[in-house]
Amino acid sequence: MVIPSLIECKRDGAELPPGTWAAIVRAYAVEEIPDYQMSALLMAVVWRGLSNAELTELTAAMLASGDRLRFEGWEVPRVDKHSTGGVGDKTSLLLAPMLACCGAAVPMMSGRGLGHTGGTLDKLESIPGFSTQLTLPDAMAQVRRLGCALFGQTQDIAPVDRRLYALRDVTGTVPSVPLIAASIMSKKLAEGLNALVLDVKAGSGAFLPDEADAIDLARTMIDLGEASGVRTVALVTAMDRPLGNACGNALEVEECILALSGEGPSDLMEVTLALGVEMLKAAGLERDGGVARRRLQDTITNGAALRKFAKIIEAQGGNPAIVEDPAALPQAAHSAVYTAPSAGKVAAVHPKAIGLGVNAMGGGRTRVEERVDPSVGFVVTVRPGDDVEAGQPLATVYAQDEAGLQAGEAALSEAIVIGGSLPVSRPLVSHRVTVDGVEELSS
Amino acid sequence: MVIPSLIECKRDGAELPPGTWAAIVRAYAVEEIPDYQMSALLMAVVWRGLSNAELTELTAAMLASGDRLRFEGWEVPRVDKHSTGGVGDKTSLLLAPMLACCGAAVPMMSGRGLGHTGGTLDKLESIPGFSTQLTLPDAMAQVRRLGCALFGQTQDIAPVDRRLYALRDVTGTVPSVPLIAASIMSKKLAEGLNALVLDVKAGSGAFLPDEADAIDLARTMIDLGEASGVRTVALVTAMDRPLGNACGNALEVEECILALSGEGPSDLMEVTLALGVEMLKAAGLERDGGVARRRLQDTITNGAALRKFAKIIEAQGGNPAIVEDPAALPQAAHSAVYTAPSAGKVAAVHPKAIGLGVNAMGGGRTRVEERVDPSVGFVVTVRPGDDVEAGQPLATVYAQDEAGLQAGEAALSEAIVIGGSLPVSRPLVSHRVTVDGVEELSS
Repeated sequence: MVIPSLIECKRDGAELPPGTWAAIVRAYAVEEIPDYQMSALLMAVVWRGLSNAELTELTAAMLASGDRLRFEGWEVPRVDKHSTGGVGDKTSLLLAPMLACCGAAVPMMSGRGLGHTGGTLDKLESIPGFSTQLTLPDAMAQVRRLGCALFGQTQDIAPVDRRLYALRDVTGTVPSVPLIAASIMSKKLAEGLNALVLDVKAGSGAFLPDEADAIDLARTMIDLGEASGVRTVALVTAMDRPLGNACGNALEVEECILALSGEGPSDLMEVTLALGVEMLKAAGLERDGGVARRRLQDTITNGAALRKFAKIIEAQGGNPAIVEDPAALPQAAHSAVYTAPSAGKVAAVHPKAIGLGVNAMGGGRTRVEERVDPSVGFVVTVRPGDDVEAGQPLATVYAQDEAGLQAGEAALSEAIVIGGSLPVSRPLVSHRVTVDGVEELSS
Repeated sequence: MVIPSLIECKRDGAELPPGTWAAIVRAYAVEEIPDYQMSALLMAVVWRGLSNAELTELTAAMLASGDRLRFEGWEVPRVDKHSTGGVGDKTSLLLAPMLACCGAAVPMMSGRGLGHTGGTLDKLESIPGFSTQLTLPDAMAQVRRLGCALFGQTQDIAPVDRRLYALRDVTGTVPSVPLIAASIMSKKLAEGLNALVLDVKAGSGAFLPDEADAIDLARTMIDLGEASGVRTVALVTAMDRPLGNACGNALEVEECILALSGEGPSDLMEVTLALGVEMLKAAGLERDGGVARRRLQDTITNGAALRKFAKIIEAQGGNPAIVEDPAALPQAAHSAVYTAPSAGKVAAVHPKAIGLGVNAMGGGRTRVEERVDPSVGFVVTVRPGDDVEAGQPLATVYAQDEAGLQAGEAALSEAIVIGGSLPVSRPLVSHRVTVDGVEELSS
């Protein structure tokens, strides 16, 4: 295999011949292709894209570079949800126990926060003692026993994806729909799923802000999933403002406990239920959307989902008492109420500014190896379109020190825009995408 | 300096802010930027190009990364010629002594052959004992003493260009007009020149086959040269067939000796004189083109250029007797005459097939570190448009063994096309490009 000529081929816009991407992944896995050639090839892919055949082969090769969860012969349908990432997006922590209570198995392998968006693993690790580092056998055993495991990508899963992702992160080659799709799906297809629901965010705080790009990514991932025999459905949801009130790891876990107790913010519950309905339907556990929604709501009303969450926490070494006493979660030393500087209608709550504010207080990371402070963040109770009075409380900042409070307040004053022309907020759930096409859900 | 964000900026088609390219080159020089980031950035440049300001800054920074020849206070005008590379292109070996005989100083720093094109250093090194590895002080002293030195890029000259060129070669990032121009000009501007004449090849055997691309590259390099105070002129010359008869290192040196003795092939002499006239004019040594041409021809007629060539060879450790006795050059063990397989008009003599044929016999290299056999090659006496009889000798193959002869004959049968539709040959010298514009020389 002559790598420079393959790079030239892709650079010039051609499709690489069948078998080439598989060979590239195998050679990269054993370090026969150096990073400096791979990064040039990746930039050529950002430029020229990949054909469907190339993408399918790349994804399969990245999946095949590692191990996978195996549930052969087990009749319980496995379903997972993947989000492209957002601010305040904690639906995974709700859906995992809710779906497990409905008879699904949820082998949920998640990632960490990066940039302005949060990550499920960081949220879970704010629970004292909680370990997200399960071995694959342990994760499989827990899924069979409890219907759910919440864990991080192990070294065994799609190792080539891990290396490629780290390389892309430092070489300006992240924003490529096929590369994003291959990275996500090579991991999700390793979960041994029957069904997968994708939460593809659109709006200013999304990884791909543009709605058309989001739909394009959704369709690309759906094709990859269905080609591997996994029923795959996507919802396009709003990320032009944070989801729910809490942004910050422990604060979001606390909001999840509230939500599983029936007291979640309505936007968070609407998105969670919409995704949950798709998961139940895609898993073949329910045909009727209305019934599916009621079954999911019942897991909250009857306390089953909260109990399941506690059991999962306990199984993974965490302190289950937090579901009764959220004060057992890490607490920030300082807090301050942020009030409206003027009266008017709220024009925007910019999620990116909120997410970067969490980072500025130490609650997120700009590099993979950074540690996060789980306690800091925001609880934002105002939404775009709300009328507010001057001096009205809009949010609370939780920080470790005075500097953190100031950084948090600065972020809020940038994020929360009062008055001026009011942009149209995105519908919370705007599109449903399946292998058959795109359905617009709200006008 | 946050490299990923600079890569992203270029990837998205933006111009990097003033000072950025200089900082990138400085950081790369001290290995603060790893190759995997540089190669992604280079691919983004292949994609998006560079603005004039970026290109000027990049070239100046590459030049400044190393040392340069210094002739301050010396009144003799320095002039050099650069070719973008071709097959059978040996004009440098003629022009250097001819110009030195006309009162110019020629500090000619050249490169090696790569791919299907030959390189001046390889040709010179076919002369027994000839050393192209001069130190900068030695090269400068020889230029002052003899009016000419023929040497290779030292480690001190544009070291960042050396590393970038090696990286581009293996990452599919060679064909970019600004990167090519920056690489060439960062070295040429290190020669301490007053004037530079560029021989930009066009046609199937050229690095940039398309005429418009060749003119674009010429203009780009002219802008860089003039911006540095070097009078820069380009000729676009034909590389849709080999130049002259001999292709192969020692064979080309032998042809140069013939040419300096007044017996050169007419196409070779026409291109050589056209370039020489431009060099004399650009150096300010002659205003009138006709007079310049006569002065150059006189250096051949009166034997001065051949004597100068012998002195240069002697000064650089080579055996000057070769100018009297070309048999002292390395000789191939075998030769075979290649005859026309059929009668008809010669439609093409493809230079690339000829060049690759030299490689196949061991006379060129596909990788920088390969050694070349100086003795092998071709003498092709037929030209496109010639009428030939079946069985008429068209060329001679010089090889080290039977396998080489066969490879050479196979290359000739691919290269020399008899009959069929006759493509229009390019004019030997088609355009003259200056800072003022492009002048078409033949219709």
